[in-house]
Amino acid sequence: MALKAVLLNCTLKKSPEVSNTQALMDRVIAVLEGLEVECETVRIVDHKVPFGVSSDEGDGDEWPLILEKILAAEILIIGTPIWFGVRGSVCQLVIERLDGTYDSTNEVGQYPLYNTVGGVVVTGNEDGAHAAAETTLFNLSHLGCTIPPNADTYWVGDAGPGPSFIEAGGAEHPYTQKTTSWMAHNLVHLARMLQEHPIPPEGNTVPGFDAPHVG
Amino acid sequence: MALKAVLLNCTLKKSPEVSNTQALMDRVIAVLEGLEVECETVRIVDHKVPFGVSSDEGDGDEWPLILEKILAAEILIIGTPIWFGVRGSVCQLVIERLDGTYDSTNEVGQYPLYNTVGGVVVTGNEDGAHAAAETTLFNLSHLGCTIPPNADTYWVGDAGPGPSFIEAGGAEHPYTQKTTSWMAHNLVHLARMLQEHPIPPEGNTVPGFDAPHVG
Amino acid sequence: MALKAVLLNCTLKKSPEVSNTQALMDRVIAVLEGLEVECETVRIVDHKVPFGVSSDEGDGDEWPLILEKILAAEILIIGTPIWFGVRGSVCQLVIERLDGTYDSTNEVGQYPLYNTVGGVVVTGNEDGAHAAAETTLFNLSHLGCTIPPNADTYWVGDAGPGPSFIEAGGAEHPYTQKTTSWMAHNLVHLARMLQEHPIPPEGNTVPGFDAPHVG
Amino acid sequence: MALKAVLLNCTLKKSPEVSNTQALMDRVIAVLEGLEVECETVRIVDHKVPFGVSSDEGDGDEWPLILEKILAAEILIIGTPIWFGVRGSVCQLVIERLDGTYDSTNEVGQYPLYNTVGGVVVTGNEDGAHAAAETTLFNLSHLGCTIPPNADTYWVGDAGPGPSFIEAGGAEHPYTQKTTSWMAHNLVHLARMLQEHPIPPEGNTVPGFDAPHVG
Repeated sequence: MALKAVLLNCTLKKSPEVSNTQALMDRVIAVLEGLEVECETVRIVDHKVPFGVSSDEGDGDEWPLILEKILAAEILIIGTPIWFGVRGSVCQLVIERLDGTYDSTNEVGQYPLYNTVGGVVVTGNEDGAHAAAETTLFNLSHLGCTIPPNADTYWVGDAGPGPSFIEAGGAEHPYTQKTTSWMAHNLVHLARMLQEHPIPPEGNTVPGFDAPHVG
Repeated sequence: MALKAVLLNCTLKKSPEVSNTQALMDRVIAVLEGLEVECETVRIVDHKVPFGVSSDEGDGDEWPLILEKILAAEILIIGTPIWFGVRGSVCQLVIERLDGTYDSTNEVGQYPLYNTVGGVVVTGNEDGAHAAAETTLFNLSHLGCTIPPNADTYWVGDAGPGPSFIEAGGAEHPYTQKTTSWMAHNLVHLARMLQEHPIPPEGNTVPGFDAPHVG
Repeated sequence: MALKAVLLNCTLKKSPEVSNTQALMDRVIAVLEGLEVECETVRIVDHKVPFGVSSDEGDGDEWPLILEKILAAEILIIGTPIWFGVRGSVCQLVIERLDGTYDSTNEVGQYPLYNTVGGVVVTGNEDGAHAAAETTLFNLSHLGCTIPPNADTYWVGDAGPGPSFIEAGGAEHPYTQKTTSWMAHNLVHLARMLQEHPIPPEGNTVPGFDAPHVG
Repeated sequence: MALKAVLLNCTLKKSPEVSNTQALMDRVIAVLEGLEVECETVRIVDHKVPFGVSSDEGDGDEWPLILEKILAAEILIIGTPIWFGVRGSVCQLVIERLDGTYDSTNEVGQYPLYNTVGGVVVTGNEDGAHAAAETTLFNLSHLGCTIPPNADTYWVGDAGPGPSFIEAGGAEHPYTQKTTSWMAHNLVHLARMLQEHPIPPEGNTVPGFDAPHVG
């Protein structure tokens, strides 16, 4: 069965201008597609996604449609720029909206994101990639995702202001190329594994979960 | 084949006194042993482990013996107290020493910790568990570990100084009990999966790795 | 000359419901007013403040009005809830908008927030106060603020979900009461000092700053 | 009255080899000395400083001598390398040892580090400077230090392994040069201010402090 990946671009930029984060996400997509993964990118700021911690904040909230895509995918990748040394506000907003998934379960009583594999893409003109990646991968892990080895790729320049990913030629940066490949491959390796062997609902279901009646 | 877990207790306390971190680690061990995992705990401060970023700093360094245990286990759990809102110095030292593993590979050219599953145990009298866990799990992921869903358990009290885990009865805390069970079970689920289906060496090997001659 | 404080409440809640963060901010305000500081609170979500990193994103952006208040005050306090172990998205948005101040200077060529004193108020039902406070105070320091000793106050409950500040009676928590008093007093002590003795423009002005012509 | 600065070099390197962190600290010292500040550097690993959270761990502990220097200085600067995206273990150890100061007060009942001004120097071959600086400055603020604007300087290279400060010519990096100057000047500006106008012991003394009898 084919794998599906959803990639959330958490840029702050409202206009459809060039996005450094998207440029690195596109490198990841290229590898994923080479491995026959169907990829869909959602640019959060193109949608009405209000602040909140539920899965539907009402009043035209478009998050429910995005969440549906996320829950239908085997791979979830969050792409974020760095601002002030940490992940951007749109990325934080996306994680906050995922809080709503804690209120439901999959068919066997685990959090809905169990058996989803998580990865992170980070770009900035300098410093903050570890902070942005570690917080985001940890949050995904709490939400139920499995984190493969080397599940992040990033590009940052040296100290202080400077050119960003595209202008700096980050796509040719050996470390970023290596980690892009590692990340994409490992997301696929683990996603295939969990597709064939889902995590058994033993010792990890939500208390009070009422097992679905069968038959 | 039986699973082995190595648990590193990164307390700062030199004397063999009561350790809050060990007390919570013991809860994790109880679940793991119930799942037939062979557990070994190493209290870092009981050994001569100097600062450094290689696998052997010489002069009686006992890290090589600890590293051998780590590499022979399917599950690696790091237990740390919180100091000043982040993981303690002994935990940071342990992660730094693991830097040495970047200089070698497993038999198929991946980092040596590929196919090891990582988890974290954190205790503090207040605040800092997310920070300690997220940094540590991210570091383990970079080193090659797979991080299952809900791979951490912690106990912290409310704001400011106060009783620690043992005195506060943290072992009876429902959230900590739940996450202890989830963590231990998921470590085992993923370790079994990777034992039967190791991550294939495709797209994730160290550049320049010279494949071992066979036959 | 009387001191003015601006307090930015970065709750995510759109409706004018009870805010735990505001409740703790109100404790700080009570001390500040006792010290004759004029306090004004701005609830960010009550205003149209789009994502961005400039001081005016156009199209009805209300940030310029908020920024004006900030620059007119001697004390800047940011209040934020914790979500997923770090500061909330609205707080991150506010810091990103302050990026715009890097493009201008005060009259002597320093960043506009020089001689402003910064503090932070954090509430959450558990864990993450250090992370939220440290990132925010550091960002304020980069933007030009001076950070007094003990410039933060917070309340968090013990591990896992649980009651928040108001319900838990956090206002009666001795540690939170102590740090509220310390924070408010030290903000005032340093603000008075900088009001009388501004930081001289020696070795800390923006390169290329064109000194204002006088006379 | 002349100002004194103590700089703690928290390198992991045991032998007196070249230290990148020291190289950047030396740039800060050059500016400070130009401003007539008397500077003393302590290389922590040259001393016997065991893990612990008290001011004297006994058994030949050399921390008390270092602490004495710290308490006699108006400026405290902590220099640390980055390891795994955060401050190194020796820096964490130093902060943990400063925990002991919470058990005493200055003459007026404040924490002993009140009226000390704090700054941070960070070097790494890539990413992590914000994390290292923000945690360290926040800890110093909790301990009683005042943090001036732009109280940190750092150098990091672009993503992934690469040359460190000295080899990369970081001393010529414009951003690092600018922040080195800003940091050193602002430390001095604030230290002079606090030397002449110490923070009054109003609303910020340790509960239970017994005011010294006078006369």
